[in-house]
Amino acid sequence: MKKVVLIPDSFKGTLSSTRVCEIMDNSIKRRFPDCEVIQIPVADGGEGTVDCFLQAVGGRKRTVRVPGPFLDPVAGFYGILENEERTAVIEMAACAGLPLAEGRENPEKASTYGVGGLIADAIEQGCREFVLGLGGSATNDGGCGMAAALGVLFLNKEGKPFLPAGGNLMELCSIDMSGLHPALKECRFTAMCDIDNPMYGPLGAACIFGPQKGADEAMVKRLDSGLQHLSGVLARDLGRDVSGLPGAGAAGGMGGGAAAFLQAQLRSGIEVVLDTVRFDERIEGADVIFTGEGRLDCQSLMGKVVGGVAQRAKRKGIPLVAVAGSIDENTGDIYTSGVSAAFSITRKPVPFREARKSSEENLAFAMDNILRLLEIS
Amino acid sequence: MKKVVLIPDSFKGTLSSTRVCEIMDNSIKRRFPDCEVIQIPVADGGEGTVDCFLQAVGGRKRTVRVPGPFLDPVAGFYGILENEERTAVIEMAACAGLPLAEGRENPEKASTYGVGGLIADAIEQGCREFVLGLGGSATNDGGCGMAAALGVLFLNKEGKPFLPAGGNLMELCSIDMSGLHPALKECRFTAMCDIDNPMYGPLGAACIFGPQKGADEAMVKRLDSGLQHLSGVLARDLGRDVSGLPGAGAAGGMGGGAAAFLQAQLRSGIEVVLDTVRFDERIEGADVIFTGEGRLDCQSLMGKVVGGVAQRAKRKGIPLVAVAGSIDENTGDIYTSGVSAAFSITRKPVPFREARKSSEENLAFAMDNILRLLEIS
Repeated sequence: MKKVVLIPDSFKGTLSSTRVCEIMDNSIKRRFPDCEVIQIPVADGGEGTVDCFLQAVGGRKRTVRVPGPFLDPVAGFYGILENEERTAVIEMAACAGLPLAEGRENPEKASTYGVGGLIADAIEQGCREFVLGLGGSATNDGGCGMAAALGVLFLNKEGKPFLPAGGNLMELCSIDMSGLHPALKECRFTAMCDIDNPMYGPLGAACIFGPQKGADEAMVKRLDSGLQHLSGVLARDLGRDVSGLPGAGAAGGMGGGAAAFLQAQLRSGIEVVLDTVRFDERIEGADVIFTGEGRLDCQSLMGKVVGGVAQRAKRKGIPLVAVAGSIDENTGDIYTSGVSAAFSITRKPVPFREARKSSEENLAFAMDNILRLLEIS
Repeated sequence: MKKVVLIPDSFKGTLSSTRVCEIMDNSIKRRFPDCEVIQIPVADGGEGTVDCFLQAVGGRKRTVRVPGPFLDPVAGFYGILENEERTAVIEMAACAGLPLAEGRENPEKASTYGVGGLIADAIEQGCREFVLGLGGSATNDGGCGMAAALGVLFLNKEGKPFLPAGGNLMELCSIDMSGLHPALKECRFTAMCDIDNPMYGPLGAACIFGPQKGADEAMVKRLDSGLQHLSGVLARDLGRDVSGLPGAGAAGGMGGGAAAFLQAQLRSGIEVVLDTVRFDERIEGADVIFTGEGRLDCQSLMGKVVGGVAQRAKRKGIPLVAVAGSIDENTGDIYTSGVSAAFSITRKPVPFREARKSSEENLAFAMDNILRLLEIS
């Protein structure tokens, strides 16, 4: 074995994708000390996204003091990749995430303002290519906070500028884009977005994700009306109708806001990762690729990590081995999709609450035996 | 893949070893239609032992009307293998097994008489080599019933012959071997015996296995005294002291009886299987050997199926893959022992009562993916 590529998702509830990579790498190095191992832990746009990209591509993490979800300063951060484009990777959770709001959760007040601050800083650092991780947000402001930090003016019926948040979107009368940071014209934004929820309505940001951000039923209704109102103003003043855009409802409407204010493209996380890390080039000459996720099920082949990786592995004719915490009976035809073989790391029939305690050892054991088997023939 | 050998134990509580073989064979044939597959389902001496040997070696099953555990006739059977020695394989459970005693369990009364009948029939059929499966017995007669059926006389204090069973062994005064079936001198008996329990005492046949045959505490004591008494008479009258023989306590003292009356050698089941099927010859040229068991644990390498097979596979340098329902954290060093790789068939973390329902599908899935992986490299 000369070259192996590791590109696992996290095992939700047990192991981060970076930890999965480490454990896989250990097994390989123990058995094949001279093997080149490329680690591409997959990020989902939420917490840990910057670290994943930095590990996969290399680069540096920059810490910047920016306003947090309630505008008190926090130590935000983002990554600048060592690739040709010097891509800036920003996870909005770094300054607008739910953990930062702990104990004060209030999607009527929480703002994405800090995200705009991170973008502005990256622009100053010369970045023009951006990956925006949506996920884990405490906000419901449709990305208006971010836009405000980048020079967009939001005006009320008296024509006075104000900072929109989830609770006061109904006061919005018009949007003035004239002050927008000029460098944004040269910037290209890709948002990582694994959900299809629309901006508003019964499947929209407020109705589906509002409650987990602390909204009660009445607040959910107000938040939903606010996002619907914002959509109308965006369509009228920016000429960008995001009301039907799948994924616009991601991160409290940040999906729609990124599309409208930044012309961001909303893409599935795995596709963003595969392109950003130049997956097709990097697997060239690999003997085998390892992927994995917590649960391999009928969703796995549809826009998720295993499916996305399988498609590309198949195109290059490189064997792909998937490991998973559990493998459903009904996974669809994983083999035709490009998975060469799949193994559960579960060693014995015990309930999840017990099995999860041994997930590191179990993953290492499964990897060891897969590698031993690969050595046989 | 040109040649594969399957030699699994049963997965206790879920799959017989013949069923494990079938499922493994299906997976292999689907993937490698031209592959030669040798199936050696391992017997443990209990129910199913004859079928396992017939499947592994070939031969015929002979049904014979013999006395059952309570001397009412049953349709007993044994196997005559198609090997050079025309080995007779007898599982004592076929005429003295617990299922035949269902509802009437009484180890003071149950007799191994029928086993002697099967042996006599096999002698008539020309068999001189015997494999005797101990296990699953309803009896505690120290093999005296079997011996009686073969011409041995058991005399009481009046010098009158009687048929000893668990409950009347104390009446035994002397044993007269003069009427023993003359052909037995030419016969060689090997008993399959995976336990080390002595004839009597706190770890003896009655104390350890009496309760599961229906004995209460008082009966256990009586049975134990009877076996101790029998041991003394065997030592005195046959010159064969089995009181310290490991395994003498198997099958209600049948281990000791077989050793004393038939000069049987007590051996571990897997060693008997490996020798009888001529394992070393038959694995010649195999690409891989598959073994397996319900639970791979620290016992597996010690006289059990996986350990026995591993030793021989290693000697021949043939890769050995083990599959198991569960794999303990502490299995000892299976790899040094000769196991190339081990996989659990468990697909997800669920309790055993749930997992067992899917054991066939899970085994097939594991086999499919192991074979797919073997094809990669």
